[in-house]
Amino acid sequence: MSNTKNLVAGVDFGTDSVRVVIVDAADGEELATAVEYYPRWQKGEYCDAANNQFRQHPLDYMESMQAVFRKTLEAGGREMAGNIRGISVDTTGSTPGAVDEQGRPLALLKEFEDNPNAMFVLWKDHTAVAEAEEINKLAKTWGGEDYTRYEGGIYSSEWFWSKILHVLREDAKVREAAFSWVEHCDWIPALLSGETNPLSLKRSRTAAGHKAMWHASWHGLPSDEFLTRLDPLLAGLRERLYTETYTGDVPVGTLSEEWADRLGLTTDVVVGVGAFDAHFGAVGAQIEENMLVKVMGTSTCDMIVTKKPQGSEHLVRGICGQVDGSILPGMLGMEAGQSAFGDVYAWFKDLLMWPLENLPIGRIAEDILSQAAYEMIPVLSEKASKLPIDESGIIALDWMNGRRTPDANQRLKGALTGLSLGSDAPRIFRALVEATAFGSKRIIERFEEEGAAIKGIIAIGGIPKKSPYIMQVTADVLNRPIKVVTSEQAVALGAAMAAATAAGLYESMHDAQQAIGSGFERTYTPDPEKAKQYERLYEKYIKLGRFVEDELTG
Amino acid sequence: MSNTKNLVAGVDFGTDSVRVVIVDAADGEELATAVEYYPRWQKGEYCDAANNQFRQHPLDYMESMQAVFRKTLEAGGREMAGNIRGISVDTTGSTPGAVDEQGRPLALLKEFEDNPNAMFVLWKDHTAVAEAEEINKLAKTWGGEDYTRYEGGIYSSEWFWSKILHVLREDAKVREAAFSWVEHCDWIPALLSGETNPLSLKRSRTAAGHKAMWHASWHGLPSDEFLTRLDPLLAGLRERLYTETYTGDVPVGTLSEEWADRLGLTTDVVVGVGAFDAHFGAVGAQIEENMLVKVMGTSTCDMIVTKKPQGSEHLVRGICGQVDGSILPGMLGMEAGQSAFGDVYAWFKDLLMWPLENLPIGRIAEDILSQAAYEMIPVLSEKASKLPIDESGIIALDWMNGRRTPDANQRLKGALTGLSLGSDAPRIFRALVEATAFGSKRIIERFEEEGAAIKGIIAIGGIPKKSPYIMQVTADVLNRPIKVVTSEQAVALGAAMAAATAAGLYESMHDAQQAIGSGFERTYTPDPEKAKQYERLYEKYIKLGRFVEDELTG
Repeated sequence: MSNTKNLVAGVDFGTDSVRVVIVDAADGEELATAVEYYPRWQKGEYCDAANNQFRQHPLDYMESMQAVFRKTLEAGGREMAGNIRGISVDTTGSTPGAVDEQGRPLALLKEFEDNPNAMFVLWKDHTAVAEAEEINKLAKTWGGEDYTRYEGGIYSSEWFWSKILHVLREDAKVREAAFSWVEHCDWIPALLSGETNPLSLKRSRTAAGHKAMWHASWHGLPSDEFLTRLDPLLAGLRERLYTETYTGDVPVGTLSEEWADRLGLTTDVVVGVGAFDAHFGAVGAQIEENMLVKVMGTSTCDMIVTKKPQGSEHLVRGICGQVDGSILPGMLGMEAGQSAFGDVYAWFKDLLMWPLENLPIGRIAEDILSQAAYEMIPVLSEKASKLPIDESGIIALDWMNGRRTPDANQRLKGALTGLSLGSDAPRIFRALVEATAFGSKRIIERFEEEGAAIKGIIAIGGIPKKSPYIMQVTADVLNRPIKVVTSEQAVALGAAMAAATAAGLYESMHDAQQAIGSGFERTYTPDPEKAKQYERLYEKYIKLGRFVEDELTG
Repeated sequence: MSNTKNLVAGVDFGTDSVRVVIVDAADGEELATAVEYYPRWQKGEYCDAANNQFRQHPLDYMESMQAVFRKTLEAGGREMAGNIRGISVDTTGSTPGAVDEQGRPLALLKEFEDNPNAMFVLWKDHTAVAEAEEINKLAKTWGGEDYTRYEGGIYSSEWFWSKILHVLREDAKVREAAFSWVEHCDWIPALLSGETNPLSLKRSRTAAGHKAMWHASWHGLPSDEFLTRLDPLLAGLRERLYTETYTGDVPVGTLSEEWADRLGLTTDVVVGVGAFDAHFGAVGAQIEENMLVKVMGTSTCDMIVTKKPQGSEHLVRGICGQVDGSILPGMLGMEAGQSAFGDVYAWFKDLLMWPLENLPIGRIAEDILSQAAYEMIPVLSEKASKLPIDESGIIALDWMNGRRTPDANQRLKGALTGLSLGSDAPRIFRALVEATAFGSKRIIERFEEEGAAIKGIIAIGGIPKKSPYIMQVTADVLNRPIKVVTSEQAVALGAAMAAATAAGLYESMHDAQQAIGSGFERTYTPDPEKAKQYERLYEKYIKLGRFVEDELTG
């Protein structure tokens, strides 16, 4: 490898593991990649699934990050280490943790090493349901600013303030010791660069704007008055958090000696401001003005960027969030999504697996069970793909895990209607696929009703790579082409684009996208005839949804 | 066996087979029984399931009736033959067939021996959907009597006139040769007694009143004017059918020499007027005033008898039929039912069997498949029985085969709402069981809203014998005890009671019921606490049903 090459590293902290990809900043060639699982998390430590408590130890992040860099450099050749110019990091979120005055997560202190409340509270931890309800109630009734309004008007138990308040109430020792709080995506760059002072470390615009009710119009976080009314435990905390926030093109600093050593890199490496995985995923998918990027997996995250409005900002109703610069600097980043997408099919698969796993029929070997689970969705897809659209058939509702957008409501549930004695597994599966596509359509409609035009759709995630039937039905229902990104790791690639920009190799994130982007491996083109038929089924889906929401949801 | 014994035979023609039970008329002791399958039907001859065409050859009835009597007498001892005093017959219905002037079913003539249109059109044959719609339209609009009004206000494609009109339109040769038409339950007694003249053979009140729009207030069948308007092909047919009808306590005659010989009995044996299986089943279940008898199998038939009203007859809205003497002579017999009951569970079982039968997982032996199918509902029942009632859980609608009562509507379909990612097979099964019980409750409510009090419930059929979980949920939902009849063949037993009455061994059917009835093997007693919880779920079921009917059914 030539010494003149400029390489960048994208680091993607997922729910279970951390992945690194090292790419050539000139053309985006993916030179090396590796994955490392979090050791404590893998053993289920500090979690209590029955109570929706999911905590991650900061040592899991530190140890696995060190290990994955070693593995990646071994895979790619140690000589590439000297050519790495920048590192950027994305994480899940909102995943906040309490820190002391030096910015150390409390779980790194001897006293707190086994205390789950001193660890990072993972995005999917739902222990703060009551606190979220209180925040929503106060925001609507206290007479001042409704701080939830740029986050879709409904604050979630998965987010920053809900979790902080829950932990502060729950744990007096953590309350005493917690000087401030950091998001996982803020703490890793701070750690790598040694800039961990909680009063000055560079906070991600993405995390602040989408999850912490930060907005420029009210000069940062919600007022101390609001927070104190919510709970006196929060009094004064605002001052120990932040007012400024930063987009992903901004450098935080360079690698500290300790971390240059631990990762096997030099102290010249620039560390960029972090962001959430979905948002760097959108960057990696080459999002641009008025393009929709859909991250399609167990759930979906649907993101667009638009020009910043002139004058007063227009609010998009019922969308998770709209934040200046949360995806691309200088543009408004908007986020929506479906609480369950692949999870809807997984639910049906598990239902159909029930007899194999529960009936006393004996002699079904483990390998047959795995084979059945493995074949289920492909075989259902193949059978469903041969059925003509049935306009008098089954209509399903995809809310098995509630509804995220439009108009978040976690109490909503899924449905199957139009069932007859002839409704077999492929027909029900088809209806579920149609329903998840209808949920996508509803989001696009809402964006457009609110004036955010969508000129194209790009997909990343597991489903676009594995499920042509689901993708084709989605394209037919949306009546728009869907382009699938070539790279297998669009999220880490987006972090690499941010790293290249933060390191000054490109003027803008847009330029980095152009150079590093992988392009698209295929396009699903809608069938106009089917689109018309789906339009009629969609009307029934909307009717059914309205009934379930208005009449059946207590 | 003593020569002084008086025995009677009940003959029950089901969908697939004919069963005979010979009982001691003094105490109902079941002395012998046997079953014989219809040979042509078993081979699928003359049927076309894809088009819902189901026809039965009269030779199937004749040959299997002869064989089953031989078998029964062999099993019970030939010496009982001389003690048999009466025979009564029940059949499925409406199952009409065309006959010539001598009352011979056309399929018995050489020319028609292989013509399905010259055979009996089985109850579940749905080829006459269009004709049923025409009958309903004309009945509501022609300005004269609405002849459907004692049959629930909606005429079915399964019934007498729909089927006759369909065959007459379809088949010119049958049209030419058909002098008159007979129900299966009328033809067998006619055949046995030799009284086959279609102008004088004794017609069953049950079949006439419930399926042929016969009513005393309009002096029999619908007017020639109505029938001719429906289709000129029907002109004059009314005169070649009947005006008088007879209840099950009336004798038709005695066995002809030919049939005494074929059955191995004497020509002294009295042959009673026939009826449908459900109605003689209600007799066999010891139905009495304001008791509800539920025949619970793939579908249900729910019957009550009430005192005849004084003065003008009150109409029970949306019930399949109300006919003076159709169950017990001298009382008003009312019939309601659910189009799918056990079929709802069978649908779910088939859905869950799909992977075992369709995935390419190899090495699953036939015996494991049968074992799985056999265990499915018992294991689901056992798991579901351990779940507490979930008031925020799944609500299902049991209309997978349309809705028979109240207010027949075959276009309605089933539903499952309240589905979450945790909705597993036992939870869905429980919701289906609750939904079928809610469907039963709706029927009882309608009876009571219309002034027909229900003072108790008796169950017969496959489900009461095999499914304690389903029976207990039904009792809890209905908040009433349900008594299960001891006899395994309540229907044939009811025919035997009718035979004993027709033969003069008892003054009335009621007396025969008292003497011959088997009594009850157990009672399902409702849990008042659960009944209260189900009351709240039932409200949601009603709401869901209203939505599906008003908004989703095109």
